[in-house]
Amino acid sequence: MDLKDIKTPSDIKQCSIDDLKKLSEEVRQFLIQELSKTGGHLGPNLGVVELTIALHHAFDSPKDKFIWDVGHQAYVHKMLTGRMEGFNTLRQYRGLCGFPKRSESEHDVWETGHSSTSLSAAMGMAIARDIRGEDHAVVPIIGDGALTGGMALEALNHIGHEQKNMIVILNDNEMSIAPNVGALHNVLGRLRSGQRYNYVKDEMEYLLKKVPAIGGRLASTAERLKDSMKYLVVPGMFFEELGFTYYGPIDGHSYEDLFRSIRYAKNTEGPIILHVITKKGKGYRPAESDKIGTWHGVGPYKIDSGESLKKSGSGPAWSKVISDSLMKIAKDDEEVVAITPAMTVGSKLEDFKKEFPDRLFDVGIAEQHATTVSGGLAAVGMKPFLSIYSTFLQRGFDQVVHDIARQNLPVTFGIDRAGLVGADGETHQGVFDISFLRHLPNMRIMMPKDATEAQNMVYTALSQKDGPMAIRYPRGNAKEAPKDVAFELVPIGSWEVLRKGQDSVILTFGTMLDLAMEAAEQLREDGLSVRVVNARFIKPLDEKMIHHIVKENIPILTIEEHALQGGFGSAVLEFIEQQDYLYPYVYRMGLPDYFVEHGSVGELLEETGLTVENVKKKIKQIVPLQKKRA
Amino acid sequence: MDLKDIKTPSDIKQCSIDDLKKLSEEVRQFLIQELSKTGGHLGPNLGVVELTIALHHAFDSPKDKFIWDVGHQAYVHKMLTGRMEGFNTLRQYRGLCGFPKRSESEHDVWETGHSSTSLSAAMGMAIARDIRGEDHAVVPIIGDGALTGGMALEALNHIGHEQKNMIVILNDNEMSIAPNVGALHNVLGRLRSGQRYNYVKDEMEYLLKKVPAIGGRLASTAERLKDSMKYLVVPGMFFEELGFTYYGPIDGHSYEDLFRSIRYAKNTEGPIILHVITKKGKGYRPAESDKIGTWHGVGPYKIDSGESLKKSGSGPAWSKVISDSLMKIAKDDEEVVAITPAMTVGSKLEDFKKEFPDRLFDVGIAEQHATTVSGGLAAVGMKPFLSIYSTFLQRGFDQVVHDIARQNLPVTFGIDRAGLVGADGETHQGVFDISFLRHLPNMRIMMPKDATEAQNMVYTALSQKDGPMAIRYPRGNAKEAPKDVAFELVPIGSWEVLRKGQDSVILTFGTMLDLAMEAAEQLREDGLSVRVVNARFIKPLDEKMIHHIVKENIPILTIEEHALQGGFGSAVLEFIEQQDYLYPYVYRMGLPDYFVEHGSVGELLEETGLTVENVKKKIKQIVPLQKKRA
Repeated sequence: MDLKDIKTPSDIKQCSIDDLKKLSEEVRQFLIQELSKTGGHLGPNLGVVELTIALHHAFDSPKDKFIWDVGHQAYVHKMLTGRMEGFNTLRQYRGLCGFPKRSESEHDVWETGHSSTSLSAAMGMAIARDIRGEDHAVVPIIGDGALTGGMALEALNHIGHEQKNMIVILNDNEMSIAPNVGALHNVLGRLRSGQRYNYVKDEMEYLLKKVPAIGGRLASTAERLKDSMKYLVVPGMFFEELGFTYYGPIDGHSYEDLFRSIRYAKNTEGPIILHVITKKGKGYRPAESDKIGTWHGVGPYKIDSGESLKKSGSGPAWSKVISDSLMKIAKDDEEVVAITPAMTVGSKLEDFKKEFPDRLFDVGIAEQHATTVSGGLAAVGMKPFLSIYSTFLQRGFDQVVHDIARQNLPVTFGIDRAGLVGADGETHQGVFDISFLRHLPNMRIMMPKDATEAQNMVYTALSQKDGPMAIRYPRGNAKEAPKDVAFELVPIGSWEVLRKGQDSVILTFGTMLDLAMEAAEQLREDGLSVRVVNARFIKPLDEKMIHHIVKENIPILTIEEHALQGGFGSAVLEFIEQQDYLYPYVYRMGLPDYFVEHGSVGELLEETGLTVENVKKKIKQIVPLQKKRA
Repeated sequence: MDLKDIKTPSDIKQCSIDDLKKLSEEVRQFLIQELSKTGGHLGPNLGVVELTIALHHAFDSPKDKFIWDVGHQAYVHKMLTGRMEGFNTLRQYRGLCGFPKRSESEHDVWETGHSSTSLSAAMGMAIARDIRGEDHAVVPIIGDGALTGGMALEALNHIGHEQKNMIVILNDNEMSIAPNVGALHNVLGRLRSGQRYNYVKDEMEYLLKKVPAIGGRLASTAERLKDSMKYLVVPGMFFEELGFTYYGPIDGHSYEDLFRSIRYAKNTEGPIILHVITKKGKGYRPAESDKIGTWHGVGPYKIDSGESLKKSGSGPAWSKVISDSLMKIAKDDEEVVAITPAMTVGSKLEDFKKEFPDRLFDVGIAEQHATTVSGGLAAVGMKPFLSIYSTFLQRGFDQVVHDIARQNLPVTFGIDRAGLVGADGETHQGVFDISFLRHLPNMRIMMPKDATEAQNMVYTALSQKDGPMAIRYPRGNAKEAPKDVAFELVPIGSWEVLRKGQDSVILTFGTMLDLAMEAAEQLREDGLSVRVVNARFIKPLDEKMIHHIVKENIPILTIEEHALQGGFGSAVLEFIEQQDYLYPYVYRMGLPDYFVEHGSVGELLEETGLTVENVKKKIKQIVPLQKKRA
């Protein structure tokens, strides 16, 4: 069996274990080769080569349902289900998606991207199966990191209670996106080592063999102890308590072990957890030796050395600009505390952690808890900075509403990866946060035009005595480093005019300012004078400036790299509606009402119409329209 | 010590246990008496009388921090902290809040309303304490039901890992808002009975006493077994595994037991869980014998019989209208499945449960899981109906975005308690869901004008092959029962004109239609002819009708019992902005940008300006304005 001949999972059904071992090697070489050109989630996929092959060998997809938690570890699954040829387009515009995608294959029965959803989805499918009287396996594959997400724990609680047949593959690589934290991690660590299991089991067996000889009461004690031994010798107590059968640890790189345990699982009634130990990056030295998560997701690299081929941007990463500012402030103010849900590396908080090990809390993949821990800190007067990706803040939404905004607590939200994120695609675009935060009373939202303004925003937010403040910043790099100047407060609700003009006004912020400036410059050649405003406060608006513009009777164009519905442009529309002006007019540009898929940010802006050309076209259309009025 | 003389917790510090027992009786009589007039959360508070008194006796609030999870059980705490006189205004407009409220007392250090937040808040406070080098206790009080919420489990994982000093009171009354479900409930049940603990402990002690006599290898085995015995005899294995010391079960109505365990907890390093068993409704027979949660929160009642004094509404409860429709459809279609997060009673799904016990899943307080279970069902072609309060859907927000809307899955959301809810106040108002759902691609949102339309909406939603659909309905009762007619599909995005008129058009839906009709009727006397439209689809809009109205050049007024920002009115503003009309005009009425507190719905509408008078005023203002244009 040659790798390239595998079109469907049935092609590997007849393979011997030796064949499979050879196949694993080919799969690894393919991944290392292909991803060196496209980039992608190399580490997680190298870790699950044998596991994925064993699953497809032992089960019958798509009748049996594989549900890949987070989904970045589904590359091998994609290879085995007819998508090998697509890998040269991986995570590229209109190319193969980096996550399971139902439109790509009938073998992708559930789409992921965010963590910890697989058990709940699996439960839905198990319920459906049982109502319909069908007979197939439901197999969620979840990492040890994803298990700390609250919804996964909610699901364990429900599944254990209902006793549905389900085979949960716990893919334990001792690391999610970064080294794991949390008590559950310690539970798994003890299981992984198997220490307690072997030690206690041996002793007990020896003891029980002797005991009957003593006779009488001891004999019956021994009998009863055998019953309760389950609690002593079963190492997966945590899971057993929740109603699951625990089986493990299992060597996730041994086909013999994997097949044996899957056979056991198939014969078990009720939910079972197979605790599979894998090594992230297995078979590729640079990735295997990664201890902090660098090889979790990567750009193109040199195969021999592992050296990154990604060109670094002109300035520092936005995340770094923010975390450096935070560090500077934290040096003088020991009430500043940073919280991150498993994103110490992603949000560039490693230096902060080194400098202030007692004031950086990585709470694991647990955005709800992260948000309310920040609230608890703020309630007693500390200055918490919650660093969180825009798309993951969705997980803490109720906590933002109910715990933070409602109590008017001074929590600073560092909303990382705001706007289009590129290759990670639709599950990771940060294009909804304005819409889901703007309507919350007490909330303030900002976005900086450059690194210097970014550091002033961090300073401004941490200077607040009351109420939450969010700073949005994009993925990627700032154009230049922040100026080495003293921090200044950004007046709340203040905008600034970056370019003068009398025919029309563009209100925009962050990443879209360059586009607006370029369009304005080009429009000058067409005889139109366009004002460009850095609308750095998305809430509250600079109401004074809006009044001023409306009185001039010139049309406003808002531009945002964000969903049009409920976004910044809507805020401007809403504000003007509440006034009694006769002829104000506002036009909006932003992202359309569909989920934007993966591609480079440039390609996605082009697709969604956020281009210099379109801005020019819009301005040329609205200026005469407004002149017809009044 | 007389109850009425207690102004601060220090007033009970010197009381003997006999005094406290007498005090408990007085507190109970006070609660039964006062709540018979105002209504409120009687059951939970009768259950925690001794516990609350013991906590205030043993700790030093507000230096020591009590954090009441959910918060509806904080009445006794309020009584002991100087708020006894406020109870005649409990949950009434401008009266005592039914939950902890920081503005009411320095003893309320954290506000709640939603479940499962206390451990995270407590962790924030514990971190702050340790950074500052302070020395005080942090004491979250959490129910067994709230413990199944994902964020509480996230918090356990983090607290156990960090080993912060914290005394968690697990108030186990075997029931949250309704009887609990879930594997954790079974864990607690085993602990509660204490069976395993006593049985295994006795046997082991006996065995170990004998063993040394056997000598040699067995002696050392016995020694080692003593070490591992912890795992055998400690009943709180689940919590111990997570890094907590477990102590219990404790009789929550015995001061001796409570004081002994609190002393133990104070001397314990790291986090400890005190498992306190209480009886909901304790001391009031009608509440004590409640098995389904009827006495969790009540209206006024007759003290002797427990009979409710609440006048029932004219028609059936909205929740019942919805669940009855669901039942009718489920009879013919076995792919229909109902999901509820612990709200079988609240959402009136008891009959559904009786009729289809295998197709109603109460997943416990676990909104994230509830949402994605529904997604899993829909992904394989079932027809899930997720019944969920508007305010609690905030908990499942990311799941709505990432799992349901993004995959375009046909999940029907029954959004219960949409709009102002009255006495429960700001934590429970359902006034944000349009803003947090409307911007999601693929989402459709409806609200019925009456019970007959409601049943058609349930039918319409369950007939969809693709994409989510939400039906909002208010708390309280419909005016009349639905007509006994065949279900009809409501055309997607269709509105209907309820009253003709040429001077202005009111677009509104649900609860606000009566107000609009009344205003229109009164305006006729002022010579204005106002059209009233049942804008039953909030997304998508009836674009054809809007075009028609704009071409008539008459002003539009939108009205909604929902936050103004990002709401329905904004959707209309946004749609019109995207057209090239010269003089369209839209005005909006809705709820202002602050959290609306408790009171009757009528009082709250008055406060926020949603009155017939204001509608009339607005129409009289906008009609001449529009005439000035064009």
